[in-house]
Amino acid sequence: MDIPVFSDTWFMNEALKEARAAFDKDEIPVGALVVCNNITVARAHNLTETLNDVTAHAEMQAFTAAATALGGKFLQECTLYVTLEPCVMCAGAAYWTRIGRIVWGASDEKRGFTLSGERVLHPRTKTTGGILGNECSTILKEFFRTKRKSSRNNGDIEPGLN
Amino acid sequence: MDIPVFSDTWFMNEALKEARAAFDKDEIPVGALVVCNNITVARAHNLTETLNDVTAHAEMQAFTAAATALGGKFLQECTLYVTLEPCVMCAGAAYWTRIGRIVWGASDEKRGFTLSGERVLHPRTKTTGGILGNECSTILKEFFRTKRKSSRNNGDIEPGLN
Repeated sequence: MDIPVFSDTWFMNEALKEARAAFDKDEIPVGALVVCNNITVARAHNLTETLNDVTAHAEMQAFTAAATALGGKFLQECTLYVTLEPCVMCAGAAYWTRIGRIVWGASDEKRGFTLSGERVLHPRTKTTGGILGNECSTILKEFFRTKRKSSRNNGDIEPGLN
Repeated sequence: MDIPVFSDTWFMNEALKEARAAFDKDEIPVGALVVCNNITVARAHNLTETLNDVTAHAEMQAFTAAATALGGKFLQECTLYVTLEPCVMCAGAAYWTRIGRIVWGASDEKRGFTLSGERVLHPRTKTTGGILGNECSTILKEFFRTKRKSSRNNGDIEPGLN
Protein backbone atom coordinates (compact mmCIF):
# COMPACT_ATOMS: atom_id res chain seq x y z
CA MET A 1 0.00 0.00 0.00
CA ASP A 2 1.41 3.36 -1.03
CA ILE A 3 0.30 5.95 1.51
CA PRO A 4 1.65 9.40 2.33
CA VAL A 5 4.06 9.42 5.26
CA PHE A 6 2.71 11.00 8.47
CA SER A 7 -0.87 10.95 7.24
CA ASP A 8 -3.64 9.47 9.40
CA THR A 9 -3.62 6.48 7.07
CA TRP A 10 0.11 6.00 7.53
CA PHE A 11 -0.12 6.00 11.31
CA MET A 12 -3.20 3.77 11.26
CA ASN A 13 -1.26 1.32 9.14
CA GLU A 14 1.37 1.28 11.88
CA ALA A 15 -1.36 0.63 14.44
CA LEU A 16 -2.53 -2.25 12.23
CA LYS A 17 0.93 -3.79 12.51
CA GLU A 18 0.38 -3.80 16.28
CA ALA A 19 -3.02 -5.43 15.78
CA ARG A 20 -1.33 -8.14 13.73
CA ALA A 21 1.18 -8.69 16.53
CA ALA A 22 -1.78 -9.22 18.88
CA PHE A 23 -3.35 -11.67 16.39
CA ASP A 24 -0.14 -13.69 16.32
CA LYS A 25 -0.35 -14.01 20.13
CA ASP A 26 -3.96 -15.22 19.95
CA GLU A 27 -5.12 -11.90 21.38
CA ILE A 28 -8.11 -9.96 20.05
CA PRO A 29 -6.28 -7.95 17.37
CA VAL A 30 -6.39 -4.30 18.36
CA GLY A 31 -3.35 -2.05 18.03
CA ALA A 32 -2.64 1.51 19.12
CA LEU A 33 -0.09 4.28 18.68
CA VAL A 34 0.39 7.58 20.46
CA VAL A 35 1.93 10.16 18.16
CA CYS A 36 3.29 13.56 19.14
CA ASN A 37 4.48 15.99 16.44
CA ASN A 38 4.66 13.10 13.97
CA ILE A 39 6.85 11.12 16.33
CA THR A 40 5.50 7.82 17.61
CA VAL A 41 6.03 7.96 21.36
CA ALA A 42 4.19 4.74 22.20
CA ARG A 43 2.91 1.66 20.44
CA ALA A 44 0.99 -1.21 21.99
CA HIS A 45 -1.45 -4.00 21.33
CA ASN A 46 -4.12 -5.77 23.27
CA LEU A 47 -2.67 -8.10 25.91
CA THR A 48 -5.70 -9.09 27.98
CA GLU A 49 -5.02 -12.82 27.66
CA THR A 50 -1.26 -12.65 28.03
CA LEU A 51 -1.48 -10.47 31.13
CA ASN A 52 -4.65 -12.09 32.45
CA ASP A 53 -6.00 -8.55 32.81
CA VAL A 54 -9.18 -7.29 31.17
CA THR A 55 -7.92 -3.71 31.49
CA ALA A 56 -4.85 -4.38 29.29
CA HIS A 57 -6.41 -2.88 26.16
CA ALA A 58 -4.02 -1.45 23.58
CA GLU A 59 -5.05 2.14 24.38
CA MET A 60 -4.50 1.82 28.14
CA GLN A 61 -0.99 0.55 27.62
CA ALA A 62 -0.27 3.17 24.96
CA PHE A 63 -1.37 5.99 27.31
CA THR A 64 0.83 4.73 30.12
CA ALA A 65 3.79 4.19 27.80
CA ALA A 66 3.36 7.64 26.21
CA ALA A 67 3.30 9.37 29.59
CA THR A 68 6.46 7.51 30.54
CA ALA A 69 8.16 8.40 27.26
CA LEU A 70 7.20 12.08 27.47
CA GLY A 71 7.82 12.43 31.20
CA GLY A 72 4.45 14.12 31.81
CA LYS A 73 1.02 12.77 32.65
CA PHE A 74 -0.90 14.74 30.03
CA LEU A 75 -1.06 14.20 26.30
CA GLN A 76 -2.65 17.40 24.97
CA GLU A 77 -0.25 17.55 22.02
CA CYS A 78 -0.71 13.91 21.09
CA THR A 79 -2.94 11.83 18.86
CA LEU A 80 -4.07 8.31 19.68
CA TYR A 81 -4.39 6.02 16.67
CA VAL A 82 -6.29 2.84 17.44
CA THR A 83 -7.62 0.20 15.09
CA LEU A 84 -10.95 -0.19 16.93
CA GLU A 85 -13.17 2.54 18.36
CA PRO A 86 -12.28 2.85 22.06
CA CYS A 87 -14.57 1.36 24.68
CA VAL A 88 -15.91 3.42 27.57
CA MET A 89 -12.97 2.46 29.81
CA CYS A 90 -10.42 3.63 27.25
CA ALA A 91 -12.38 6.78 26.43
CA GLY A 92 -12.61 7.51 30.16
CA ALA A 93 -8.83 7.08 30.39
CA ALA A 94 -8.43 9.38 27.38
CA TYR A 95 -10.37 12.01 29.31
CA TRP A 96 -7.83 11.97 32.13
CA THR A 97 -4.91 12.16 29.66
CA ARG A 98 -6.51 15.24 28.02
CA ILE A 99 -5.28 13.82 24.70
CA GLY A 100 -5.61 16.21 21.77
CA ARG A 101 -7.09 13.84 19.21
CA ILE A 102 -8.30 10.28 18.79
CA VAL A 103 -8.35 8.54 15.42
CA TRP A 104 -9.85 5.08 15.10
CA GLY A 105 -10.33 2.54 12.36
CA ALA A 106 -13.28 0.14 12.77
CA SER A 107 -16.40 1.15 14.65
CA ASP A 108 -17.43 -0.90 17.68
CA GLU A 109 -21.17 -1.11 17.43
CA LYS A 110 -21.63 -2.87 20.76
CA ARG A 111 -19.12 -1.32 23.18
CA GLY A 112 -17.81 1.79 21.42
CA PHE A 113 -17.75 4.92 23.57
CA THR A 114 -19.78 6.88 21.00
CA LEU A 115 -22.79 4.80 22.01
CA SER A 116 -22.75 6.57 25.36
CA GLY A 117 -25.32 9.30 25.73
CA GLU A 118 -22.94 11.43 27.75
CA ARG A 119 -19.83 13.00 26.35
CA VAL A 120 -17.07 10.85 27.82
CA LEU A 121 -14.03 12.53 26.29
CA HIS A 122 -12.39 15.77 27.35
CA PRO A 123 -14.16 18.67 25.59
CA ARG A 124 -10.94 19.61 23.80
CA THR A 125 -10.34 16.14 22.36
CA LYS A 126 -11.01 15.94 18.63
CA THR A 127 -12.03 12.67 16.98
CA THR A 128 -11.93 11.02 13.56
CA GLY A 129 -13.32 7.56 12.85
CA GLY A 130 -13.11 5.17 9.91
CA ILE A 131 -9.45 5.50 8.89
CA LEU A 132 -8.57 2.16 7.24
CA GLY A 133 -11.86 1.01 8.71
CA ASN A 134 -12.20 -1.99 6.39
CA GLU A 135 -8.69 -3.27 7.10
CA CYS A 136 -9.12 -2.79 10.85
CA SER A 137 -12.46 -4.58 10.79
CA THR A 138 -11.23 -7.41 8.57
CA ILE A 139 -8.51 -8.53 10.96
CA LEU A 140 -11.03 -8.66 13.82
CA LYS A 141 -13.50 -10.68 11.76
CA GLU A 142 -10.73 -13.04 10.70
CA PHE A 143 -9.73 -13.51 14.35
CA PHE A 144 -13.22 -14.41 15.49
CA ARG A 145 -13.76 -16.68 12.49
CA THR A 146 -10.58 -18.54 13.41
CA LYS A 147 -11.67 -18.75 17.05
CA ARG A 148 -15.04 -20.18 16.13
CA LYS A 149 -13.49 -22.69 13.77
CA SER A 150 -11.09 -23.99 16.36
CA SER A 151 -13.85 -24.12 18.98
CA ARG A 152 -11.54 -22.40 21.38
CA ASN A 153 -14.12 -19.75 22.22
CA ASN A 154 -14.37 -20.09 25.99
CA GLY A 155 -17.01 -17.42 26.36
CA ASP A 156 -14.80 -14.56 27.40
CA ILE A 157 -14.51 -12.80 24.08
CA GLU A 158 -15.19 -9.11 24.33
CA PRO A 159 -18.92 -8.70 23.66
CA GLY A 160 -18.46 -5.72 21.41
CA LEU A 161 -16.15 -7.56 19.10
CA ASN A 162 -18.06 -10.73 18.26
CA MET B 1 -15.25 3.04 65.61
CA ASP B 2 -16.93 -0.24 66.56
CA ILE B 3 -18.30 -1.81 63.38
CA PRO B 4 -19.36 -5.40 62.63
CA VAL B 5 -16.65 -7.46 60.98
CA PHE B 6 -17.22 -8.27 57.29
CA SER B 7 -19.96 -5.67 56.93
CA ASP B 8 -19.87 -3.13 54.11
CA THR B 9 -18.85 -0.55 56.70
CA TRP B 10 -15.98 -2.72 57.88
CA PHE B 11 -14.57 -3.19 54.40
CA MET B 12 -15.07 0.48 53.55
CA ASN B 13 -13.12 1.36 56.66
CA GLU B 14 -10.30 -0.78 55.27
CA ALA B 15 -10.56 1.07 51.96
CA LEU B 16 -10.31 4.33 53.94
CA LYS B 17 -6.99 3.13 55.34
CA GLU B 18 -5.79 2.88 51.74
CA ALA B 19 -7.09 6.39 51.08
CA ARG B 20 -5.07 7.62 54.05
CA ALA B 21 -1.97 5.91 52.65
CA ALA B 22 -2.55 7.87 49.43
CA PHE B 23 -2.95 11.11 51.41
CA ASP B 24 0.38 10.49 53.12
CA LYS B 25 2.01 10.25 49.66
CA ASP B 26 0.45 13.54 48.56
CA GLU B 27 -1.89 11.63 46.25
CA ILE B 28 -5.60 12.39 45.92
CA PRO B 29 -6.85 10.14 48.72
CA VAL B 30 -8.91 7.36 47.19
CA GLY B 31 -8.59 3.77 48.37
CA ALA B 32 -10.05 0.50 47.10
CA LEU B 33 -10.41 -3.15 48.07
CA VAL B 34 -11.54 -6.18 46.13
CA VAL B 35 -13.21 -8.72 48.41
CA CYS B 36 -14.18 -12.29 47.52
CA ASN B 37 -16.12 -14.40 50.03
CA ASN B 38 -15.12 -12.00 52.80
CA ILE B 39 -11.46 -12.36 51.90
CA THR B 40 -9.63 -9.25 50.73
CA VAL B 41 -7.86 -10.32 47.55
CA ALA B 42 -6.56 -6.88 46.57
CA ARG B 43 -6.06 -3.47 48.14
CA ALA B 44 -4.78 -0.36 46.45
CA HIS B 45 -4.76 3.41 46.49
CA ASN B 46 -4.51 6.16 43.96
CA LEU B 47 -0.96 6.48 42.56
CA THR B 48 -1.40 8.86 39.63
CA GLU B 49 1.36 11.20 40.80
CA THR B 50 3.78 8.55 41.99
CA LEU B 51 3.49 6.58 38.74
CA ASN B 52 3.06 9.65 36.52
CA ASP B 53 0.04 7.88 35.07
CA VAL B 54 -3.48 9.31 35.05
CA THR B 55 -4.90 5.81 34.68
CA ALA B 56 -3.42 4.63 38.01
CA HIS B 57 -6.67 5.05 39.94
CA ALA B 58 -7.16 2.86 43.00
CA GLU B 59 -9.83 0.77 41.29
CA MET B 60 -7.73 0.02 38.19
CA GLN B 61 -4.89 -1.27 40.30
CA ALA B 62 -7.24 -3.24 42.54
CA PHE B 63 -8.83 -4.96 39.52
CA THR B 64 -5.46 -5.96 38.10
CA ALA B 65 -4.17 -7.13 41.48
CA ALA B 66 -7.36 -9.11 42.16
CA ALA B 67 -7.15 -10.91 38.81
CA THR B 68 -3.54 -11.76 39.55
CA ALA B 69 -4.39 -13.01 43.05
CA LEU B 70 -7.31 -15.13 41.86
CA GLY B 71 -5.63 -16.39 38.70
CA GLY B 72 -8.62 -15.52 36.53
CA LYS B 73 -9.58 -12.42 34.59
CA PHE B 74 -13.16 -12.16 35.82
CA LEU B 75 -14.43 -11.06 39.20
CA GLN B 76 -18.08 -12.16 39.21
CA GLU B 77 -17.88 -13.36 42.82
CA CYS B 78 -16.14 -10.22 44.06
CA THR B 79 -17.11 -6.85 45.50
CA LEU B 80 -15.17 -3.66 44.88
CA TYR B 81 -15.10 -1.27 47.84
CA VAL B 82 -13.91 2.19 46.89
CA THR B 83 -13.98 5.40 48.90
CA LEU B 84 -15.08 7.57 45.94
CA GLU B 85 -17.70 6.79 43.30
CA PRO B 86 -15.82 5.36 40.29
CA CYS B 87 -15.23 7.55 37.25
CA VAL B 88 -16.25 6.43 33.78
CA MET B 89 -12.84 4.84 33.11
CA CYS B 90 -13.04 2.72 36.26
CA ALA B 91 -16.69 1.84 35.70
CA GLY B 92 -15.78 0.84 32.13
CA ALA B 93 -13.02 -1.37 33.52
CA ALA B 94 -15.49 -2.85 36.01
CA TYR B 95 -17.67 -3.82 33.05
CA TRP B 96 -14.88 -5.92 31.59
CA THR B 97 -14.16 -7.59 34.95
CA ARG B 98 -17.86 -8.53 35.27
CA ILE B 99 -17.51 -7.74 38.98
CA GLY B 100 -20.49 -8.81 41.08
CA ARG B 101 -20.92 -5.67 43.17
CA ILE B 102 -19.52 -2.19 43.63
CA VAL B 103 -19.79 -0.31 46.93
CA TRP B 104 -18.59 3.27 47.18
CA GLY B 105 -18.36 5.90 49.86
CA ALA B 106 -18.49 9.53 48.69
CA SER B 107 -20.34 10.53 45.56
CA ASP B 108 -18.42 12.23 42.74
CA GLU B 109 -20.76 14.88 41.48
CA LYS B 110 -18.53 15.92 38.59
CA ARG B 111 -16.98 12.76 37.19
CA GLY B 112 -18.92 9.89 38.80
CA PHE B 113 -20.05 7.19 36.39
CA THR B 114 -23.66 7.50 37.53
CA LEU B 115 -23.79 10.83 35.74
CA SER B 116 -23.56 8.97 32.44
CA GLY B 117 -26.83 8.58 30.59
CA GLU B 118 -25.87 5.10 29.43
CA ARG B 119 -25.51 2.14 31.72
CA VAL B 120 -21.75 1.67 31.86
CA LEU B 121 -21.56 -1.31 34.20
CA HIS B 122 -22.23 -4.95 33.38
CA PRO B 123 -25.95 -5.63 33.74
CA ARG B 124 -25.28 -8.15 36.53
CA THR B 125 -23.19 -5.75 38.64
CA LYS B 126 -25.02 -4.55 41.74
CA THR B 127 -24.19 -1.20 43.35
CA THR B 128 -24.44 0.51 46.73
CA GLY B 129 -23.33 4.09 47.36
CA GLY B 130 -22.85 6.19 50.49
CA ILE B 131 -21.14 3.70 52.84
CA LEU B 132 -19.08 5.86 55.23
CA GLY B 133 -19.82 8.64 52.75
CA ASN B 134 -18.99 11.42 55.19
CA GLU B 135 -15.65 9.96 56.20
CA CYS B 136 -14.69 9.26 52.58
CA SER B 137 -15.66 12.79 51.57
CA THR B 138 -13.93 14.44 54.52
CA ILE B 139 -10.49 13.07 53.69
CA LEU B 140 -10.85 14.36 50.09
CA LYS B 141 -11.92 17.80 51.27
CA GLU B 142 -9.04 17.91 53.75
CA PHE B 143 -6.62 16.98 50.96
CA PHE B 144 -7.76 19.76 48.64
CA ARG B 145 -7.85 22.28 51.50
CA THR B 146 -4.24 21.40 52.27
CA LYS B 147 -3.29 21.68 48.61
CA ARG B 148 -4.88 25.09 48.28
CA LYS B 149 -3.24 26.33 51.46
CA SER B 150 0.21 25.30 50.34
CA SER B 151 -0.36 26.75 46.86
CA ARG B 152 0.94 23.55 45.40
CA ASN B 153 -2.07 23.15 43.16
CA ASN B 154 -0.46 22.92 39.74
CA GLY B 155 -3.72 22.62 37.86
CA ASP B 156 -3.79 18.89 37.36
CA ILE B 157 -6.16 18.00 40.15
CA GLU B 158 -8.92 15.69 39.00
CA PRO B 159 -11.81 17.96 38.03
CA GLY B 160 -14.42 15.86 39.77
CA LEU B 161 -12.66 16.06 43.08
CA ASN B 162 -12.10 19.78 43.57
